[in-house]
Amino acid sequence: MFGEMLENVRTKAPLVHNITNYVTVNDCANIVLACGGSPIMSDDASEVEEITAICGGLNINIGTLNEDTRRAMFAAGKKSNQCGHPVVLDPVAAGASRIRTETALRLLQKVRFAIIRGNVSEIKTLALGRGTTNGVDADIADTVTEENLDHAVAFLKAFAAKAGCVVAATGAIDIAADADRAYVIRNGHPMMSRVTGTGCMLSAMTAAYAAANPETPLEAAAAAIAAMGLCGERARNRLSARDGNATYRNYIIDEVYNLDGKTLEGGAKYEVR
Amino acid sequence: MFGEMLENVRTKAPLVHNITNYVTVNDCANIVLACGGSPIMSDDASEVEEITAICGGLNINIGTLNEDTRRAMFAAGKKSNQCGHPVVLDPVAAGASRIRTETALRLLQKVRFAIIRGNVSEIKTLALGRGTTNGVDADIADTVTEENLDHAVAFLKAFAAKAGCVVAATGAIDIAADADRAYVIRNGHPMMSRVTGTGCMLSAMTAAYAAANPETPLEAAAAAIAAMGLCGERARNRLSARDGNATYRNYIIDEVYNLDGKTLEGGAKYEVR
Amino acid sequence: MFGEMLENVRTKAPLVHNITNYVTVNDCANIVLACGGSPIMSDDASEVEEITAICGGLNINIGTLNEDTRRAMFAAGKKSNQCGHPVVLDPVAAGASRIRTETALRLLQKVRFAIIRGNVSEIKTLALGRGTTNGVDADIADTVTEENLDHAVAFLKAFAAKAGCVVAATGAIDIAADADRAYVIRNGHPMMSRVTGTGCMLSAMTAAYAAANPETPLEAAAAAIAAMGLCGERARNRLSARDGNATYRNYIIDEVYNLDGKTLEGGAKYEVR
Repeated sequence: MFGEMLENVRTKAPLVHNITNYVTVNDCANIVLACGGSPIMSDDASEVEEITAICGGLNINIGTLNEDTRRAMFAAGKKSNQCGHPVVLDPVAAGASRIRTETALRLLQKVRFAIIRGNVSEIKTLALGRGTTNGVDADIADTVTEENLDHAVAFLKAFAAKAGCVVAATGAIDIAADADRAYVIRNGHPMMSRVTGTGCMLSAMTAAYAAANPETPLEAAAAAIAAMGLCGERARNRLSARDGNATYRNYIIDEVYNLDGKTLEGGAKYEVR
Repeated sequence: MFGEMLENVRTKAPLVHNITNYVTVNDCANIVLACGGSPIMSDDASEVEEITAICGGLNINIGTLNEDTRRAMFAAGKKSNQCGHPVVLDPVAAGASRIRTETALRLLQKVRFAIIRGNVSEIKTLALGRGTTNGVDADIADTVTEENLDHAVAFLKAFAAKAGCVVAATGAIDIAADADRAYVIRNGHPMMSRVTGTGCMLSAMTAAYAAANPETPLEAAAAAIAAMGLCGERARNRLSARDGNATYRNYIIDEVYNLDGKTLEGGAKYEVR
Repeated sequence: MFGEMLENVRTKAPLVHNITNYVTVNDCANIVLACGGSPIMSDDASEVEEITAICGGLNINIGTLNEDTRRAMFAAGKKSNQCGHPVVLDPVAAGASRIRTETALRLLQKVRFAIIRGNVSEIKTLALGRGTTNGVDADIADTVTEENLDHAVAFLKAFAAKAGCVVAATGAIDIAADADRAYVIRNGHPMMSRVTGTGCMLSAMTAAYAAANPETPLEAAAAAIAAMGLCGERARNRLSARDGNATYRNYIIDEVYNLDGKTLEGGAKYEVR
């Protein structure tokens, strides 16, 4: 199943429109290329509707939002909805400022998302309408553990039902859920948190997976998450003693470039709840 | 000839002003440094005239244009013309939105360019005043092949005559032409299209070559194109089985850093038509 | 001493707010992660006060300033002062345009900085209220050498006394000074100047060191400078014949990731004057 999701990206090579932050935008473009998609970045309100119309999916990331890009997010989101394209939301640091929380909540009202992907603190902020974060990282109090996993799964399913889309909270344990089912995924490596933008990259790749698999957004999201985690593991194994987070970033993207469906099927560690 | 172009960059170390997109800007800066130039990025209308005046060349790339950076492009372009500096245009995704097409066409009216470099769909959009693109990649119907090469060369020469500058269309086969002569260049590797910004990087490097060789813009453009393609080949040869597009990006820039005139002369594959 | 500064960053993991340029922002984020901090980038005036309030330090870099980000710099700087957080200024290319010089000088009036770090031309521009630069690089006439070192140290101490903060001018020889003492640091490698953003990265890392060592800004700045230089040396030693400035960039960040206090103590080459 996950392997098929991946191979569909390589076969269909979807164009993915990204409205994203300027911190990790280059890595987002390269990971979309690595997984088999074709990225286009544009955040100017005067053109985003035309740009998104020629694409197969849209990724909205609020990492460095400002007044101009906010306008572009709403315009592109609505247009993408009209076109029937899957739209992914990455609510970076929602909860860390009023404007981030408000923008994310208003996007949920105005745009129909296929998938929301964030860390657990960001997702809680969207679900509860308020929240706290530790900057761009999840609040430690929110961490999903084996102990609170049942509760977290139920929470995500309930929010997915309310939001009417797939919701994914990623961290040490990843969960992707719709109203009825949740994939609990245990790939990845802690060192991924020392590379800026692994979450942003995952969201961009998720948009490519969703664009290539529009009928199965839950499986598309789960497959992208497992692929990213597996590539994080495999890249970690390539590191020598003197390599650090810069080489790790490159190797993660390299692994995504080389990953095939069979390897993903063999390496994905997940259960459905 | 190409070797001399390259060595002039290393000897003169020109300052190159870049108004470019935020997706690939870091790679553009590093490739200008790699080839021997010194990059400065600035896109604020309040300062671009001062900045461009202290440089030796200007690179205008419309990859993520917005209202503010458009103003800066016109202001810097005119000032650079007054200073007698070569100006390069990279019309990224012209044809993909009204504002991109219009901005590129208006730049052609208001600024005197030394070199225009894009993929063939972008160049056709400028020449015809309208066009279609596949996002940031060339439309497959526009691809230059051995079969339509004569036609493509004639088309570029005609547009170069009309535009009054060097025009370069890069892809599997690269062509750089002025009204009378065309360099047909067959360096490069298909995997370069899986790295974001190889076109942007080439335009930035072309501006460095043009700044160091202001009397011979056609040879400067052709040399930069051959150098980029040759470095793409050499970097490809360094890749191991687990390397992907991230490592490839780094190796391409590394090869540019280490390329000398003699190696470029030996490796450049071109003919003049 | 330097080792203790470094270990405090790893232990305290300070959140560092960066208002910085879009050219080198990704490298700045990754080097803050590499040294043990946690970066958050935000330059929208509507949220920077909230963002900076949850951080432990602020880094203001004027590399690609515009009207919007200028407003954010003043708002964040004042708020960070109210919070008692150390604020670092990187006056990139001050002297190269009126708006850069004016912005840097006004920031000095309105915001209380803990540390100013730039190349010697930028620092002279701030000290004298005017200046010349060679783009983003120091003017060759300003270079600190063994011959003019006494004069440079005295100049920096005087400016530090006037500005009421630590002032660091980095180049072939680095100097970090307050009114009374100056650290003269001789780490680093000339090839670092062929990587875009080594100065920006150092400023971001300096903010992390200052946030983790708020009582000793001079030692924090000197330790960060020595660490960056030492990592530049160590990364240079890892390069093979075909590596260039792209791989060098990655290795520098990798070395920062792996550097420990003991290695820094052993490798730092400095004297106090």
